[in-house]
Amino acid sequence: MGNITKFDVHNHRNLTMLVDFYELTMGNAYLSSNVANKVAYFDMFFRRVPDGGGYCIMAGVDQLIQYLSSLEFTEEDIAYLKSKNLFSEEFLDYLKNFKFSCDVWAVPEGNPVFPNEPLVTVKGPIIQAQFIETMILLTINHQTLIATKANRICRAAGDRPVMEFGSRRAQGYDGAIYGARAAVIGGCSSTACTIADEIFSIPAVGTMAHSWVQLFPTEYEAFKSWAETYPENCLLLVDTYNVIKSGIPNAIKVFDEILKPKGLRPKGIRIDSGDITYLANTCRQMLDDAGYPDCEIVISNSLDEHIISDVLSQGAKIDSFGVGERLITAKSEPVFGGVYKLCAIEEEDGSITAKIKISENEEKITNPGFKKIYRIFDKNSHKAIADLITLNGETIDESKPLEIFNPVYTWKKKKIKNYYVKDLMVKIFDNGEAIYESPSVLEIREYAKQETSKLWNEVLRFENPHTYYVDLSPKLWGIKQNLLHKYSEAYKDNE
Amino acid sequence: MGNITKFDVHNHRNLTMLVDFYELTMGNAYLSSNVANKVAYFDMFFRRVPDGGGYCIMAGVDQLIQYLSSLEFTEEDIAYLKSKNLFSEEFLDYLKNFKFSCDVWAVPEGNPVFPNEPLVTVKGPIIQAQFIETMILLTINHQTLIATKANRICRAAGDRPVMEFGSRRAQGYDGAIYGARAAVIGGCSSTACTIADEIFSIPAVGTMAHSWVQLFPTEYEAFKSWAETYPENCLLLVDTYNVIKSGIPNAIKVFDEILKPKGLRPKGIRIDSGDITYLANTCRQMLDDAGYPDCEIVISNSLDEHIISDVLSQGAKIDSFGVGERLITAKSEPVFGGVYKLCAIEEEDGSITAKIKISENEEKITNPGFKKIYRIFDKNSHKAIADLITLNGETIDESKPLEIFNPVYTWKKKKIKNYYVKDLMVKIFDNGEAIYESPSVLEIREYAKQETSKLWNEVLRFENPHTYYVDLSPKLWGIKQNLLHKYSEAYKDNE
Repeated sequence: MGNITKFDVHNHRNLTMLVDFYELTMGNAYLSSNVANKVAYFDMFFRRVPDGGGYCIMAGVDQLIQYLSSLEFTEEDIAYLKSKNLFSEEFLDYLKNFKFSCDVWAVPEGNPVFPNEPLVTVKGPIIQAQFIETMILLTINHQTLIATKANRICRAAGDRPVMEFGSRRAQGYDGAIYGARAAVIGGCSSTACTIADEIFSIPAVGTMAHSWVQLFPTEYEAFKSWAETYPENCLLLVDTYNVIKSGIPNAIKVFDEILKPKGLRPKGIRIDSGDITYLANTCRQMLDDAGYPDCEIVISNSLDEHIISDVLSQGAKIDSFGVGERLITAKSEPVFGGVYKLCAIEEEDGSITAKIKISENEEKITNPGFKKIYRIFDKNSHKAIADLITLNGETIDESKPLEIFNPVYTWKKKKIKNYYVKDLMVKIFDNGEAIYESPSVLEIREYAKQETSKLWNEVLRFENPHTYYVDLSPKLWGIKQNLLHKYSEAYKDNE
Repeated sequence: MGNITKFDVHNHRNLTMLVDFYELTMGNAYLSSNVANKVAYFDMFFRRVPDGGGYCIMAGVDQLIQYLSSLEFTEEDIAYLKSKNLFSEEFLDYLKNFKFSCDVWAVPEGNPVFPNEPLVTVKGPIIQAQFIETMILLTINHQTLIATKANRICRAAGDRPVMEFGSRRAQGYDGAIYGARAAVIGGCSSTACTIADEIFSIPAVGTMAHSWVQLFPTEYEAFKSWAETYPENCLLLVDTYNVIKSGIPNAIKVFDEILKPKGLRPKGIRIDSGDITYLANTCRQMLDDAGYPDCEIVISNSLDEHIISDVLSQGAKIDSFGVGERLITAKSEPVFGGVYKLCAIEEEDGSITAKIKISENEEKITNPGFKKIYRIFDKNSHKAIADLITLNGETIDESKPLEIFNPVYTWKKKKIKNYYVKDLMVKIFDNGEAIYESPSVLEIREYAKQETSKLWNEVLRFENPHTYYVDLSPKLWGIKQNLLHKYSEAYKDNE
């Protein structure tokens, strides 16, 4: 069912109708063409890691489960569809009595994932399997995009906490709420988005805006009032007027006058503008000199993984980062290009016919068939060596050496010994029933950290990472080649 | 109130807690510092038009009204906040009995808007006016971003309809739903997002996916089944295998066999990959030769304003465009940088003290005071000449010439005669009550078209547009200068 709590205001929403209209016109046509119950297999996968990175972080499965668990067409939905004068009574009846009956598999959230491997696989009557295309893509595309971006930013920050601060610049309310969720999966320590904490139990943090400082006759008075209200959590925004000449001197004065007599220590200061490295290091010195070496310096000014790497490599003395718009919109590459493609159909005799989408652009050719993914780990280092996509029925005998090969340059082979494999996808729906319980968001974050640590450093690089092997089993490779040759023959250029 | 309909599933959501946590820590501190009911004025404005354009299209006011009309803290919200051990009982009681009492003004949706002028102004007790910061920014930033991008794309397409196709790549569910709404405000003819049609009555459209074609043994059979289901609305996707060798010949065959005998005409064909101009023009010729000059050609392949301009300038024979990810995420610039700044406070004697946020970066300095915007139109051409920001009480005598001047290069002056002015902002909340009824989305689209046509061509340009005048009244300019000199004196560099 997904992690539904009484705080989850989103469960009041019925998003059944959040579909591309063609899913409805096709549904209607499947019925009129007597193919609605043909069993089809669809894969959701992506083709390229954003920002030139080496891997993505899977996210969004819990929301997908919630959506698929609550598919229901209301009377208003049916009336709306009827008004379109496009749909048969038979189709409208089908929707009225809709009962989800697909099997669904997914890679659990927090796993590193790679191009061209299925992240979600759906098996079911094509009228249903096609209907859920938009929401599968929308849900996984969005959260995987943000988790992946957050993971880059958090890696750049090293051990320093990164706080997600982007709600105000998010693309819509869910962009903020599920974006905060995905950011924490990717590694963020906390969020400024209060409702995301309330729903997902991810810590919300925040102190003051410039307006707090402006409201009072002087910055000193503003800081004083704040310290009196939050003596144990005193973090001051010091850049409303002038960080060095006004903000830090006033902060130190207030720490001395209000906190010190109570035996309390300040929490920190925040800088939201200006030359980060210069200001951070100057503030550090001033705070140290005043006896506050433990007062943390928080920076939050249009940050991303590149700026963070840069200021840290310059030796900026920063304790934590607040990252806003460039994280919550994945600004440098705001589209995650996941697609959902038919990969097989079941014949009347129960056999499976693999289907392929061909393209002049080789990268757009799909992997046919009903498949699964094995992740292969080295027994000694526990590092991930490769992913092997196989047909669903195939098994791997871990006691024998395994030969994998590049699916394009097939002479590039690798023999693997001393390994173990992990079946990467889990079944999340069985005949329409949700059968997977998602971990909490904080558990997923820990899992992501653990699984990412199993990648080689070469794959973790920001720029020009090593391409992780995603290979096909010989059987699957053979099926794909046969289909390619068949279509190549049919459209041979013989003019 | 906003346009609430029985289809508006979003009204079931309580987004009161979609706030940055600092709005709560400040709220609590306003109370403990005895300043909670001080009347404050805040402006929401932006500093730069995305994509180097000349103007933005205001959008999102209706959703803002809905949010502000339904602020309510539930028992669960209060329990959650209590669990943080940060907030006083007094503050939690305040929230429990929260009654919105602000006045709010906004520029109506569909208006062209420009940098540094207030899009939304809030007047009210600071504890409330500060609390709604995140949702004002999130709502207006998102929809204005998408409406502005859509407006660019639709202008590039000229008279050809542009369909919004981006749901699957949107950033979250609201990214898709409100994104579709904003895209139509910006000029799109329709959307693929079904629920957006159901909620906002914006036409949803769609036909088939590649999976429809793949499901059948041959492309011909797939097209035949489609034409039999939709003889009056037959639009075929022709690029599953090979547009020229297979797609178009099969489409023509089906038009001949299924539609012609019924005396029906085909609706069109859609191409979703490949060389747009070459394919469109070759298809046009083939369809014309087969007797289908009225069969429309729809293109949908990673389009934006630049690609559309480019293919049209090459003479591509295209009838309409489907635009996906680059519109729904505003990919080229996915952040709309609206900010929300304190601009004035009311003293106990009822007088208003202007407040300014200064910055070393001149562009980040705010316009102080409680303001309004007059748009000045030429009486003969009805073209918009300039926007004049004044103090709220100021009026303009249209019978007299008006001198405006550049707020930085004050010697750049312009005397305007034969003009009329329009008060751009409308009051949408009076003492917490919604008093503005939004037009329908399609009405807003027409209004946007009409108001945009009042801009000079120089402002409409895609690249290096003329900067539209946004000037300050002499009175407002004087107040700003005084504040700037005051702070400059305080932080004068005299080391």
